[in-house]
Amino acid sequence: MSSTTGNKIKISVFGQSHSKAIGVVIDGLPAGKKLDMEKIYAFMARRAPGQNEYSTARKETDIPEIVSGTVNGVTCGAPLCAVIHNTNPHSADYNNIIDTPRPSHADFSGFMRYNGFNDVAGGGHFSGRLTAPLCFAGAVCMQYLEDMDIRVQAHILKIKDASDESFDPISVSECGIDKKSFPVISDKAGEKMRAEIEKARENGDSVGGIIECAVTGIKAGLGDPMFDGVENLLSKNIFAVPAVKGIEFGNGFDAAELYGSENNDGFCIRDGEIKTVTNNSGGINGGITNGMPIIFKTALKPTPSIYKEQNSVSLSGKEEKKLQIKGRHDPCVVVRAVPVIEAVTAFTLLDICL
Amino acid sequence: MSSTTGNKIKISVFGQSHSKAIGVVIDGLPAGKKLDMEKIYAFMARRAPGQNEYSTARKETDIPEIVSGTVNGVTCGAPLCAVIHNTNPHSADYNNIIDTPRPSHADFSGFMRYNGFNDVAGGGHFSGRLTAPLCFAGAVCMQYLEDMDIRVQAHILKIKDASDESFDPISVSECGIDKKSFPVISDKAGEKMRAEIEKARENGDSVGGIIECAVTGIKAGLGDPMFDGVENLLSKNIFAVPAVKGIEFGNGFDAAELYGSENNDGFCIRDGEIKTVTNNSGGINGGITNGMPIIFKTALKPTPSIYKEQNSVSLSGKEEKKLQIKGRHDPCVVVRAVPVIEAVTAFTLLDICL
Amino acid sequence: MSSTTGNKIKISVFGQSHSKAIGVVIDGLPAGKKLDMEKIYAFMARRAPGQNEYSTARKETDIPEIVSGTVNGVTCGAPLCAVIHNTNPHSADYNNIIDTPRPSHADFSGFMRYNGFNDVAGGGHFSGRLTAPLCFAGAVCMQYLEDMDIRVQAHILKIKDASDESFDPISVSECGIDKKSFPVISDKAGEKMRAEIEKARENGDSVGGIIECAVTGIKAGLGDPMFDGVENLLSKNIFAVPAVKGIEFGNGFDAAELYGSENNDGFCIRDGEIKTVTNNSGGINGGITNGMPIIFKTALKPTPSIYKEQNSVSLSGKEEKKLQIKGRHDPCVVVRAVPVIEAVTAFTLLDICL
Amino acid sequence: MSSTTGNKIKISVFGQSHSKAIGVVIDGLPAGKKLDMEKIYAFMARRAPGQNEYSTARKETDIPEIVSGTVNGVTCGAPLCAVIHNTNPHSADYNNIIDTPRPSHADFSGFMRYNGFNDVAGGGHFSGRLTAPLCFAGAVCMQYLEDMDIRVQAHILKIKDASDESFDPISVSECGIDKKSFPVISDKAGEKMRAEIEKARENGDSVGGIIECAVTGIKAGLGDPMFDGVENLLSKNIFAVPAVKGIEFGNGFDAAELYGSENNDGFCIRDGEIKTVTNNSGGINGGITNGMPIIFKTALKPTPSIYKEQNSVSLSGKEEKKLQIKGRHDPCVVVRAVPVIEAVTAFTLLDICL
Repeated sequence: MSSTTGNKIKISVFGQSHSKAIGVVIDGLPAGKKLDMEKIYAFMARRAPGQNEYSTARKETDIPEIVSGTVNGVTCGAPLCAVIHNTNPHSADYNNIIDTPRPSHADFSGFMRYNGFNDVAGGGHFSGRLTAPLCFAGAVCMQYLEDMDIRVQAHILKIKDASDESFDPISVSECGIDKKSFPVISDKAGEKMRAEIEKARENGDSVGGIIECAVTGIKAGLGDPMFDGVENLLSKNIFAVPAVKGIEFGNGFDAAELYGSENNDGFCIRDGEIKTVTNNSGGINGGITNGMPIIFKTALKPTPSIYKEQNSVSLSGKEEKKLQIKGRHDPCVVVRAVPVIEAVTAFTLLDICL
Repeated sequence: MSSTTGNKIKISVFGQSHSKAIGVVIDGLPAGKKLDMEKIYAFMARRAPGQNEYSTARKETDIPEIVSGTVNGVTCGAPLCAVIHNTNPHSADYNNIIDTPRPSHADFSGFMRYNGFNDVAGGGHFSGRLTAPLCFAGAVCMQYLEDMDIRVQAHILKIKDASDESFDPISVSECGIDKKSFPVISDKAGEKMRAEIEKARENGDSVGGIIECAVTGIKAGLGDPMFDGVENLLSKNIFAVPAVKGIEFGNGFDAAELYGSENNDGFCIRDGEIKTVTNNSGGINGGITNGMPIIFKTALKPTPSIYKEQNSVSLSGKEEKKLQIKGRHDPCVVVRAVPVIEAVTAFTLLDICL
Repeated sequence: MSSTTGNKIKISVFGQSHSKAIGVVIDGLPAGKKLDMEKIYAFMARRAPGQNEYSTARKETDIPEIVSGTVNGVTCGAPLCAVIHNTNPHSADYNNIIDTPRPSHADFSGFMRYNGFNDVAGGGHFSGRLTAPLCFAGAVCMQYLEDMDIRVQAHILKIKDASDESFDPISVSECGIDKKSFPVISDKAGEKMRAEIEKARENGDSVGGIIECAVTGIKAGLGDPMFDGVENLLSKNIFAVPAVKGIEFGNGFDAAELYGSENNDGFCIRDGEIKTVTNNSGGINGGITNGMPIIFKTALKPTPSIYKEQNSVSLSGKEEKKLQIKGRHDPCVVVRAVPVIEAVTAFTLLDICL
Repeated sequence: MSSTTGNKIKISVFGQSHSKAIGVVIDGLPAGKKLDMEKIYAFMARRAPGQNEYSTARKETDIPEIVSGTVNGVTCGAPLCAVIHNTNPHSADYNNIIDTPRPSHADFSGFMRYNGFNDVAGGGHFSGRLTAPLCFAGAVCMQYLEDMDIRVQAHILKIKDASDESFDPISVSECGIDKKSFPVISDKAGEKMRAEIEKARENGDSVGGIIECAVTGIKAGLGDPMFDGVENLLSKNIFAVPAVKGIEFGNGFDAAELYGSENNDGFCIRDGEIKTVTNNSGGINGGITNGMPIIFKTALKPTPSIYKEQNSVSLSGKEEKKLQIKGRHDPCVVVRAVPVIEAVTAFTLLDICL
């Protein structure tokens, strides 16, 4: 009802931050694909915590165990299930929040949704930890996309006032972001962002940011009109990433200030192919790809877990109460969210491309 | 595969701009509801063209005929189908675009998707005209929401540089927007917007804008985590509205520039209920409602149909070609899109609430 | 939630026996197919009432009007909607059953499902009349199947004690059943069946029967394991046909009395292709086609509408009451159900084949 | 696409006979239910092999490990995932069938479906072993049904010529079948069935049979018309059970030989409630429950794995070849299928009841 998505590729995510395991079932993968496990591990390492100074100190091994769906490492058409064991939970850190919901977390809405039976420890099923199986699913699907010469890459576009360069929407170049410890195009912009994150961390605070994602090599004519367009399906899935509060394609919100004559993407012939002169549409018209790179941005709010004292309430006593969050938390989830956005984009697009 | 959405309430939209009829099947409506047809007509009149000087001159009667799903005007549990006949098409206006796609329209992507068999006349199934059945479906679902004291209202927040007041996110008041010919909170702001639209019209150009939507009366604990959250389902459906290129909930993209301590919504007790002090989350945490108003904004690009000459190509000749669009077109679709956004919000939420 | 089915081809049926219209939306049809309307009408005529002496006297024109989804008779990729207007209802015939449910009809279960707001007239949405849009959808999908050299044909296998020949499960021949007014292979068997039906009619009674359906030209390797196998999807849809109470593939229930060595279909090479010696599996193993003809049988109960006095109850008074059914009713729905079974099979298979 | 089913309760099954693990994700279980693990184990033991002399000698521990979805044994609303490790595979037994498909197994259809990359060992994803996670899911859902006083029970009705008593369709009694090592109502009939199975085993052969299932305590008005009726959804899921080739509700195929006056279920008042005098409809009219017990029968073919030499082909050489199956196989899967049918019925009905 909730943690399952997709049509031809069905993704079913399970697990809570402190349950025995988390994982994902991927149903519908074409048979006969030899999975490159090293590539999968490398991709997942990009979101793993503890890889740089800005992410949570919680140490996870996060090695996904593929328990079904392959024979000798080759997909066999049966649902592929990967299990990641949880080994290092500090559930005691969460004892105080069972009755005192953390602001802007899902503690309270989850309490109301599940009549108080929701798993609060580590955020339960709402935890950022659940992005590990999303990354696994994305890493697998990416290998199929690569066979179609489709490439997904994202970078941090903005953190506070510090901005990276944007992708060239006409010709997105291979930026090697996946090899950088801090995923930006301009390392100089990255320095400013790191400084902003460090400042927030020192203040027991957090910061949000914007991620830009580009998909290249995608051919024209993919997607369906109305409710199953590429924008519809991507946005449906991207909002599964914790902290995402907005998404825009191409010019997005900026288009509100433009004239049609400024925003329209005129056509041209480039290298013998019909292309557009500009790409303000982000590669999509009427929900359907037009052959230009798909470009979209997602807004991520600051990590709601901060060390500063906050206003909360006692759920049992229905009275106001101050809350001091303990535990280990990223001052900025945007860095680790970059591969997650790529991953969700990858499995959404594979579903559309098949 | 495309024009069908929803779980408990399934909406299936059909029709092209110039087909015999357009319409919608609504499957899953609870039986026993007497539909107020006058209210439905009044709601649909808000998006009808020709109601003010800024919208297309095409005259549509747009009276939906309910052909099934009711007995003596009361829903009977069977799928409700409404048909709207197309009476006034000028298909000849579109002869020149069959081979010459309009920039930023779905002509080219649709051509690629359907191997050239797509209906180009009036934009076919991608036409803004298809928002009429969306409005019908929304108007019906709104009557169910009203029984639960849930209220959906939207207004134009911005057109070019002219901005309306925002909804008060803590306490959205009944603004009577649905009675205004120009749906803004501040009529003074509306004057500026009208001037911007008029200016675009005079220049044979168009403008985009931002619509803000609020849902009040919604209780906490609705929605599902991960892929079926309220943000996921709303965004999936909202992108079905032509020209929408972005959506953000609560602070959205602005949250990227804030500290967690600024963006977090602390809890408080208000009138004996657990509420939040601020509503930067737009009423949703972890995909699930928290009992505060749902607030979101959508970005609409300028109408791609403009009278200025544009760069296009000949699909048959694969050569560059200038295009001069004929026909009747809104210089700004934002005005008529306001009830459409309300409608899509209404049927999405009813699906979640049932 | 109910009257919509399919994955790549979504079928959404609407209408009640006595509503203004009935119809169907078919979403997902590949664009570019010129529909042969004469063939569609001819197919639908096979289920139309009044074509022979054994079916209801209600005269329906039943001409489906395609209101969307085509341009000049060629599918354009947009949802295809066909509307059939209801012109000849005798709702007064049903006044007495509003409070007195007809045995083995959906009057009572529908009353409970819809809190008494269900449309009782003519059986409402449960009426056999709703098989007209099913037939339309099937007739359209069949034209796509024909392009793939796939052929669907059904015949009456049994009515009371009178049995027709079975299809040869190895090599189903073209039987021309679609041209016969009484769809049996052996016209002699048909004579006996007609006599059984006539006898029932004279007694104010009704009879049931068995329909056998065969699909030829289908290649091996179609369908998905577990819940989305060909058997799963066919049975899910076939039970939508009123009066169907059972379905079996290949040997079906007879297999319960066989040894594995009798029931197993050994392999052989026939005309250079891998085939099976026998076809007790009905062309499906593990939910997936094996390249042999798909063969299945469906059991249809006797029309529940009979003229004999029956035991019923007063819903309002909760007391036992005798019921005398009026109106026009088939003594045997099996005859007209033959094309309906073909139609449902056709759209289910097209969904699987695409 | 295949191994996922359900609307409110989504069941996603994974694993192959010889993969590292098999299991199931159950998404949508209401939070707050303390699971009785002993009951779950006891239920699963009923299908476990090696419990009686007639089932395969393969020893499985089959203890499902719940890795997510609970907190201290209580469901928390997050997807519940159970993993069963495979410990005792003899994959070498299957080396000879990789190129030589077993008659009436999914080896060949799977080969065609997955281009030869299907997992052949032990039947892969098509294996009867996959019924273990189905049973787990059913056992969990049954505990929810019990809270609604709904009871699901099945028994072997027939094996070869030996028949058990049928359930009394008006008043199904608690038969204690779940405590019997051989699930029949009449132990005397059971003796005959055992003799039939033993005879088949001695001949290196196998036998099929019929299972009857009854659901009691279900209220009237559940299910949806047309494609989402109780018959539709049950049959869709029941055909996921390996070897099932037919399903019938109430009188089913026998209804073909009856007059309406014999088959119709007249209404009566019993204990102040509206009931039917007979229950030839199997508790369902128009796809919707009528308050009588749901009764249906499923036909299971003889285990296709037999020791007798059979006709097969070489897939690589495209030539005819004799096949001698090795390994461990049940001479009759019907015995162990009884709890599987109950399990699938349970999760299907919970999905309908929620």
